[in-house]
Formats: sequence, C-alpha cells, structure tokens
Amino acid sequence: MKTVDFEAMAERIRNWGRWGAEDNRGTLNLIGPEALVRGAAAARQGKRFSLGLPFDRDGPQDGIGRTNPQLFLHTLGKPVNPAFPRVQWADDSVFMTLQCATQWDALSHVHYDGVLYNGCKVCDTLTPTGATRLGVEHLADTGIVSRGVLLDVAAYLGTPMMEGFQGITPDLLNQVAAHQGVSFATGDIVAIRTGAIRCLTIDKDRNLFRKHQSGLTPECAEWLHDHQVAAVCADNVAVEVMNAGAVADEMCLPMHGLCIRDMGMPLGEMFNLEALAADCAADGQYDFLMCAPPLGFTGAVGSPVNPIVLK
Amino acid sequence: MKTVDFEAMAERIRNWGRWGAEDNRGTLNLIGPEALVRGAAAARQGKRFSLGLPFDRDGPQDGIGRTNPQLFLHTLGKPVNPAFPRVQWADDSVFMTLQCATQWDALSHVHYDGVLYNGCKVCDTLTPTGATRLGVEHLADTGIVSRGVLLDVAAYLGTPMMEGFQGITPDLLNQVAAHQGVSFATGDIVAIRTGAIRCLTIDKDRNLFRKHQSGLTPECAEWLHDHQVAAVCADNVAVEVMNAGAVADEMCLPMHGLCIRDMGMPLGEMFNLEALAADCAADGQYDFLMCAPPLGFTGAVGSPVNPIVLK
Amino acid sequence: MKTVDFEAMAERIRNWGRWGAEDNRGTLNLIGPEALVRGAAAARQGKRFSLGLPFDRDGPQDGIGRTNPQLFLHTLGKPVNPAFPRVQWADDSVFMTLQCATQWDALSHVHYDGVLYNGCKVCDTLTPTGATRLGVEHLADTGIVSRGVLLDVAAYLGTPMMEGFQGITPDLLNQVAAHQGVSFATGDIVAIRTGAIRCLTIDKDRNLFRKHQSGLTPECAEWLHDHQVAAVCADNVAVEVMNAGAVADEMCLPMHGLCIRDMGMPLGEMFNLEALAADCAADGQYDFLMCAPPLGFTGAVGSPVNPIVLK
Amino acid sequence: MKTVDFEAMAERIRNWGRWGAEDNRGTLNLIGPEALVRGAAAARQGKRFSLGLPFDRDGPQDGIGRTNPQLFLHTLGKPVNPAFPRVQWADDSVFMTLQCATQWDALSHVHYDGVLYNGCKVCDTLTPTGATRLGVEHLADTGIVSRGVLLDVAAYLGTPMMEGFQGITPDLLNQVAAHQGVSFATGDIVAIRTGAIRCLTIDKDRNLFRKHQSGLTPECAEWLHDHQVAAVCADNVAVEVMNAGAVADEMCLPMHGLCIRDMGMPLGEMFNLEALAADCAADGQYDFLMCAPPLGFTGAVGSPVNPIVLK
Repeated sequence: MKTVDFEAMAERIRNWGRWGAEDNRGTLNLIGPEALVRGAAAARQGKRFSLGLPFDRDGPQDGIGRTNPQLFLHTLGKPVNPAFPRVQWADDSVFMTLQCATQWDALSHVHYDGVLYNGCKVCDTLTPTGATRLGVEHLADTGIVSRGVLLDVAAYLGTPMMEGFQGITPDLLNQVAAHQGVSFATGDIVAIRTGAIRCLTIDKDRNLFRKHQSGLTPECAEWLHDHQVAAVCADNVAVEVMNAGAVADEMCLPMHGLCIRDMGMPLGEMFNLEALAADCAADGQYDFLMCAPPLGFTGAVGSPVNPIVLK
Repeated sequence: MKTVDFEAMAERIRNWGRWGAEDNRGTLNLIGPEALVRGAAAARQGKRFSLGLPFDRDGPQDGIGRTNPQLFLHTLGKPVNPAFPRVQWADDSVFMTLQCATQWDALSHVHYDGVLYNGCKVCDTLTPTGATRLGVEHLADTGIVSRGVLLDVAAYLGTPMMEGFQGITPDLLNQVAAHQGVSFATGDIVAIRTGAIRCLTIDKDRNLFRKHQSGLTPECAEWLHDHQVAAVCADNVAVEVMNAGAVADEMCLPMHGLCIRDMGMPLGEMFNLEALAADCAADGQYDFLMCAPPLGFTGAVGSPVNPIVLK
Repeated sequence: MKTVDFEAMAERIRNWGRWGAEDNRGTLNLIGPEALVRGAAAARQGKRFSLGLPFDRDGPQDGIGRTNPQLFLHTLGKPVNPAFPRVQWADDSVFMTLQCATQWDALSHVHYDGVLYNGCKVCDTLTPTGATRLGVEHLADTGIVSRGVLLDVAAYLGTPMMEGFQGITPDLLNQVAAHQGVSFATGDIVAIRTGAIRCLTIDKDRNLFRKHQSGLTPECAEWLHDHQVAAVCADNVAVEVMNAGAVADEMCLPMHGLCIRDMGMPLGEMFNLEALAADCAADGQYDFLMCAPPLGFTGAVGSPVNPIVLK
Repeated sequence: MKTVDFEAMAERIRNWGRWGAEDNRGTLNLIGPEALVRGAAAARQGKRFSLGLPFDRDGPQDGIGRTNPQLFLHTLGKPVNPAFPRVQWADDSVFMTLQCATQWDALSHVHYDGVLYNGCKVCDTLTPTGATRLGVEHLADTGIVSRGVLLDVAAYLGTPMMEGFQGITPDLLNQVAAHQGVSFATGDIVAIRTGAIRCLTIDKDRNLFRKHQSGLTPECAEWLHDHQVAAVCADNVAVEVMNAGAVADEMCLPMHGLCIRDMGMPLGEMFNLEALAADCAADGQYDFLMCAPPLGFTGAVGSPVNPIVLK
C-alpha cells in the first residue's frame, strides 16, 4: 500500500538551486542573523547541556559494520624534550568511523538515482578520499548553531521511551508543539525526543537500542520544509522511523533521501536529549541556543559532534 | 639567568583541591550561570565565526610525529539495503592524532614530577587505552562555552603576524586590553592572536608555521589566574612562546605545566582567529560568545574542536 | 582438583638464560643449519600450501574485542604523475589488530607474575608504542622457517573436527605420531590439527568457531620441551584447549604462560591446515618445509602471517 | 627522444589470456612443481636470511604521502581473565599503508588506459574497500615461493651503492649474470641489488634514499619475459629506475605498466639484500630458495612482506 507519493513530495520540497548552483550548505542557509540573535536570546538562564554520547569502544556500534572509536594513548611518561626530564606528556590517536555515535549526516551522505543534493552527480562527487562537493566542512563552516526547539514526543505520549518502531507523524508533531506551547521560526533546529537513547545511557545495551527505533515518518520532511527548519536531530539512529521503507514504496530510509538529498537538510543522530528534556519539563522553556559544530573534515560525509545547549 | 621563580609561581596559582579532590574540570569550574548569561548576551549582532582549521591530510603536522587525519570514504555507491537499489550511501572512517589541528589540551595532557592536575599520580592515571582521571570527556561535558575575549596582540603591534619567537608578557596583555577597551570577568575564555596561523591559512606552509611561534611567557599563567580566566586559546602551536624553556630553568613548555597541571586550565591551540579579528577591528566589539566543545573521547588527553563564535 | 603441578613444570622447562641473558628468540634458537637443511630436504615433491586465513572485515573477530582488518583503497583512478595521465595507480591503508587472524604470538605477548621470558620485567619492557625487548621483530629476523610436522589429531580420532573443548594430551600426541609414522628432530615446528578452523572456512561462522576450541593440555608444554620443538601452531584460537584454567589451578591459558613466558616458544594460531592435512593423508608424507615469517613490526607482541608449506 | 617503442613491447610481452580469462596470478603461474623443487634444492647449506625492513614509525615514508606503521600496544598489564590476576597479556593494533616498506605490488596496483592485467576494466575492479579482481590474496595463495637468483649489479660495478638514477639495461643484467656464473630457469624470482637500501639501513636517512634510485630500464621487462621469470624484486623504491619516464614517452613508471599490467608480474620493492649479497659474494652461490609470502588481505593492491631466503 502506497501511503505517500514520494516523487511528488520530493519535487515539492526540493531546494536545488534555491541558494545557487554552487551551494553546499542546504537548509543551513536559513540560519541568518535574526535566527542567531533569536537563538542567543533563548540563552537567558545560564544553563548548559551537552548532548553528546561518550566516544569510546563501548559505543553504539556492534563493531561489524561501523567501528567504535579505538583510542590509543601512545606517548606516556615521555619527556617532551629530553633536556627537561621533569616535564612529560601524553599523546593519543584514534581510529573511528565518523558516524559511530552522536553525529551529523553531511549532504554527501545519502543519495538516490545517482544524484546528490543540488543535482551533484555521485560519479563526479564521491571519491575514496572525500567528497569534492557537499563535504561536512561546509556545514562545519556554519557551526550548525541556531535556536533549537525540543519536541518531547515520548513525554507527550506519557512514556519514558517509545518502544519498538513507531512512526511520528506531522500531526503528532503539531500536537506536541501545541501541548508544549512552542512555535517555530525560520532557521530553527528541531530536536525530536523518542527516549530510545536510554537503551544506551541507562541500559548500556547497544542491541536493545536497535530494537527501539521510533522516529519521523516520511511526511515529516514536508513539515520540516513548511516550517523553514534549518536542521533536525533526534535521539535515535536515523531521525526517521526505521521501518519506513514499506510506506514509501521503492525507497528505504525515505526521510534521508528527502531531507539530505532533496532539501539539503543535515540530520543529527544519537543526540542525548535526556537531561535537556527533564529541564525543559521542569521550567517549561523548550527553546534554547543550540551549538552543534561538526569538525571540518574535508570531504567527509559526516562528523562526530558534541552538541551544546544553552538556556 | 633565571627570570621566573617557577616553583613559587606554581605554588601561588595551584588550584588542587579548590573544586574538590575528585574534580576533573579545573578552571572550567569558573564558568557559572552568570558567565554563560554574560557570554550569550555578547551575541547580539547575529554574526557567526568558525575558528577551526580544516581536518585533512594537508594539516599542520609533518607526518613524522603526529599524523594528520587520514579520511577514507569506504562505502561508495552501495545500496543501504539491496532491496532498494535506488537508495545509496557513503560512509567514512578516519585515523588521526587527536591534537593534529585545532584542539584542546585536556588536563591529562602534560605533567611534571610524575603528578598531574589535582595531585593525580601519573602511574595511577594514564593507561594505553585512556586516562582514568582528567580525560577530555570531563571538559566535553561542560562544552567549554563562555564569553570569549580576543586580545589581538599582532594588531596592537601593527603587524599582520608576529615573526619568530616573541614572548607576550602580562604587561603586553594589559596594554592590548587597554587599547581595545576590554575588561575581564570570572569565567571568560581569552583568545590570543599572534597571526601565526596565516602561515597555514594563507601561505599553506606547515614548515613556515613552526618558525613563527610567538606566544605567552610563563608569567602569563599568573595573569590568567589573577583574572579568573576559565580557558585560554591562541592561533599558534602551544599558546605559549616556544623558546620559553630557557626562561623557566629546568622546565620546557612551562606554561603547559603551570596551566594544565597546576591550575587545571585547558589550552586551546591552532585556533584560526583571522576572520574574527578582522571583524572585531571593524566593529570594536572584542567580546563574544565562544562555544568550543571537545568531543567526549573517554580518557583522551586532547580533542579536535571546531570552535564557534557568535557576536 | 589439581592435576598438574604448574610451578614445578614451569621450573623444569624454563629456558631463561639458556641462550644468553640478552636472548629474544627463545626456542627458535633450536633451528640451526641442520634443521634448515632437514626442512628444505622435505620439500621434494614440488607441492605448495598457504596456511593463512583471508585478512578482511569478515575475519574471526567479533569486532568488540580485537578488530578485523579494515582495508581502504584510498587512491583510485589517480595519475601517478599528472604529466602522464594514462598511468594510474591504486594505494591502500589498513587498520587492524595484529592478532586478528592467522598469527604468531611474540614472546612479549603473555606473562605472569609481572615477568616475561628470560626474566624481563614487564614494567621495563612493555610500553604503549612497543616492547623494548622480546618484540616480534626478533622472530621476524629468524623467519620462523624449519621442518614442520603435522599431527592430525582430528583425523586420528576419525572426525572432521573435534567438537567442544577436548584436551589433547601428550599421550594422544604420541599415539597420533605413531599412527602417522613420524618422529621428531631438534628445531621442528609442530602443527596440531583439530579441524576447528572449518567453522570459519566452511561454515563461515565466527561464533561457532569460539564454541569448538579443543587444543593442547598444559602437560604438552613439557612434551614440546622434551622433543626440542622450536615452535608450535594449530588451527584453533589459542593452540591450547580453552577450558584448561581449571586444570592448572590459579592459571588461565596455562600453556601460554609455560610456552611463551617460560620456554620462550612462539605460538602460531588460526593456521588453516585443511588442504595440507588432506594432502598428507593422501601421500603419507607428514613432514615438510614450513616458512611462516612474521612481519618485523618493531616492538609488536604478535604478527599476522601467511605460513607457506612446501612438500 | 624515443628509445623504446613502448606500445610494441607491451604487445609482445602481454600475457592476457595466457592462463585463462579468470586468472589473477599472472607470471606466478610459471612457478610449477619443478620450480619449487629446484628452489628447495638450492637450500643446501642451512643458511637463512630475512630481507625485510623493520616496520615502524621510522620507516621509509615521509608521512605526507604514505604512512609508516603506527603501532599501539593498547592492552598492557591487563589480566586475560580477572579470575586469574597473575596471568596478563599485551595486545596491539597497527595503522599503516600496505606499501610503506618491504612489499609486493599486487596486479591491481598500477594500470594505464583504464585497463588492468588480463583486460580487467578499472571501473569494474577497483572499489574503495578492495579490488574485486587481482587482489593480493591471489598472490598470497601462491606464497610467492620459488628459486631466487641474485644479480648484484652494484658489486659488479665495484661500488657499495649505485648513486643517483642509473638505468640498468638488459645488457648489464647479462654481464652481471655471466660474471656471477648464473643462469635462469622458468619460474625463477630475480633479485636486483643496487645498494640503495643502505641509505636506510646504514645512513638511516629516508630523504637520501629517494635521491639514489637506480633500477631497471623499461627494456628489462622484455628480458624478464624472455627469461620466463616469475617475479622480480629489488632493494629500491620501484624496481625500475625512477627517471625512466623520459625514455618511454608518454609513460611514467613504464616498467610498472609493462610488468604489472601487461605481463601480470608482481614487483617486490625495498627488499634488503645486503646480508644476502655479502654471503653470495663469499660462497659464490647466487641462487637460493626465496619464500616471500604476502599477507592475504582480500582485495588489497599490495602487501607488506618479510621475505625469507634459504641457502
């Protein structure tokens, strides 16, 4: 059963050319000076939250597909300079997949029909040492900083964690927003809470985490488009609900295609929203300054991130 | 000739125990709600700057000591799910030393006499897979966000770049601050500009960069202490001037020892301050919100960072 | 129940000082010119076998502990020299744990009571960037080449694969040798076949492999010592049977301790003996030249290897 | 000036289809049972040599292009099993480029005009996670073992090391062979000594090494073809002389193209022939058993190797 006309929606929300043929930033272009000032103005209580998961061998990956960070402190108890033996240092290296834990998908991460955001052809763009267009360095340059708005879906549904694979529809987003009393402005970053990250932070069980992956339905791409959202993040693996393939026929991960490839919108995944959500519930302020800067790996298709929230 | 009594100064500025025996955050404890509100209030113009260098094979390292990031896009033109061949993705891995480009030194990075910040013994703390105390994850948790204040020493001296190895003294810092009309408050992050990063950003010459490493003299550690600064960063390799060993006898990198080990102050290195400095000179506003979150690598002694500034 | 007096056996077979206080080669010293000539003389039929497993992401490791090799072809379709665009090359990098598949344990790999082979103290020897003594480079220098003798225990027991965790005793080794009609000479390399590797090569099931880990009992260390064996290898994870901890009280992996630390004997693990064993059964020749050279990673505690057999 | 008709020579020596359309082993097919027996028969004195360079951070690479091995001992002083605290182990990981030191080029390493050995198209064969044809695993399977013959060109010329970039012609090879009194048989591995490796082994100077890269001229490809050689190795960076581009117009590294792509012959580079050469000069035996097994990295375009010689 076809519940969404994927192609028609993709056409309606496609932003190719909207910010020029050479654009590599997509919907982050929506974050103008007003959005920055609006974001900073939301930081009025002096509260601070880190939304990043730990980066280490116990991370979310099972090690067969993506690799969790392998950290090595290889310089230990070594003088920096043999002439000054009292002074010593430690130095470290890491091997990791860039999308192993809290991270941003760059606009080069997902594509369909051989074409990336803004009409870039895959064959011209993706190389084994990096993307020649749409690499995460272009997102890094903007910082991915703006006003953030939390939509705490799990709390609205009265559960600490949405179980299984529940689809979050535009209607549900609207209900949550109304319930929380929030509205949206151009350039906002929307944060969706399902509670799934608790499988990692409380249960410490990466396999359990894979079994509870509620998230946005494909129609939410249009909702994000209509609300002039700059970026969307969530506390699950893929922002979108993981079984959405059946909904949008012939497309798996349909929101990845719609957001990243058609809209040019970065997806933020595995953001730990637990402490922030508790605070928002307590003080009733669901908007804040979010500063979630990717590292500027030239040509990378994603980046780990430690997102910081100020209220 | 001994110009600084290193041991006496170390004793005066040592913060061990100041925030408890279990503290892992050092001077970042100085960033309280007031500092956060003060920082956010400085972001009033809607301007945004990224201070991060590119992370790639052409980075500042010569490849013999630390390794620049080696990025691999290893999944290219692969369907995410073979049942949906239209949809494909790219995925990437990186091998890097954590301190190869723009980065924070964690409190476990440098030590002398076998003891780290807060009296942690090296032998109990540093292991080949990470530090059991003072790892960068504790800094990541705070976000390293506060009001930032730029001291543009190069501009004050009337040069685009301080050449060679010039020491920046507390007196000089005071002159620059007076000239710029800035003052300091508890929990500020101070950014020191020497212009040296231009060797990388303009000349694209990593060897030249090593030949121009002006920076703070050891006495500045006490200046930072007295001004209740939370963290200090600069556009050079080590924040401090690189030939300071002779000044503080028996100590190389004396400010590393004084700041990291005695005060518990993180050092931010290779911050690209060029665009920010030009803007500050133009509008006369030298303070701003700085959000420079390290990644929470468990037990790491440093972290790459993409520092974001909002004015 | 204590069936082996571990300490007494360790004392009997300990080779410390036997080849000098500075020795790093252990029992490989037993491979003299006669052993090399004897080995080469066994290569008379012109047959050749590789005993190495594939090195790739589908290797024996589960990815949580040791990491299978992550191979990246990062230079593809690039001219070697832009002046000659017709000529292009590919280049590759790998990240791996050195003991992820077919491999040799170096004499620095396992120790007990804080002391390694030849009395080297752990604290003086093992550093995060390599062992200062007993690294695999010393084994690499000898090539680990000599006459090899296969003891096909599984075939003797009439099974393609020994199931579960069966201990192979010295008595059983003697029975197999007598059945095969083989005897031993100083400096031989003994290869033990349990058939367990078929879980990888036929079933392609790394979890199944962990469930069938028959191997040598601790007493075999003395058998190896008495037969003047230079090195021992097998087609399982650890040469020894994996539940031997209970036999030698207070010691897990007792043969690792006895062989590597007391005798100075390298252990070869995950050698694929299937094709070789079939050939030996067919022609009745169970001895051969074995050339299994570790790579000379300076200071490494093990090395991947592609062992070559000539008959 | 065109001294070699590259295209005509390539056509004469091209082995495509000679061993079937699916062949991945190229000239290693020339090593039949007779060659193996002949090789083993040369191992009659009980002498043994390792031709491998050390694999470590001080290797031949400058770190900007290829990366020398980065070894990490990350498990140190850790009990294998907490129930048995006396027994501890060390474990290690490495990051490296596969061709950083002593190594074999696989048949997928170099190509021209978009086609690899045996007519394999580059676009069908090379992927970011490995070559689907012609990977080094196919060479690993053969072991690269046969009779080896040393041609000590430097000794013939009366110098410890050929300086600069001297071309070694087929005539010179014939003179050296005649002087040494050696002849060749089908399936031999030829080892060419220029002495250049002394820049690494004696002078410890990787930059000096790059300045002395004498080697084979392109015409030697036909000499190797006519002598039915299975593989060729040398003690320099590329087997061939490094300035040969001018000789064979429009082609850089012409022997790489001719040997790897047209003949299907693996090239062995940075083989340390110093000790072997001294021994051959002393006893007059210039042939031996060479066993130089690549590791079976699935899909890799090269492999590190520790080549072992028995005389």
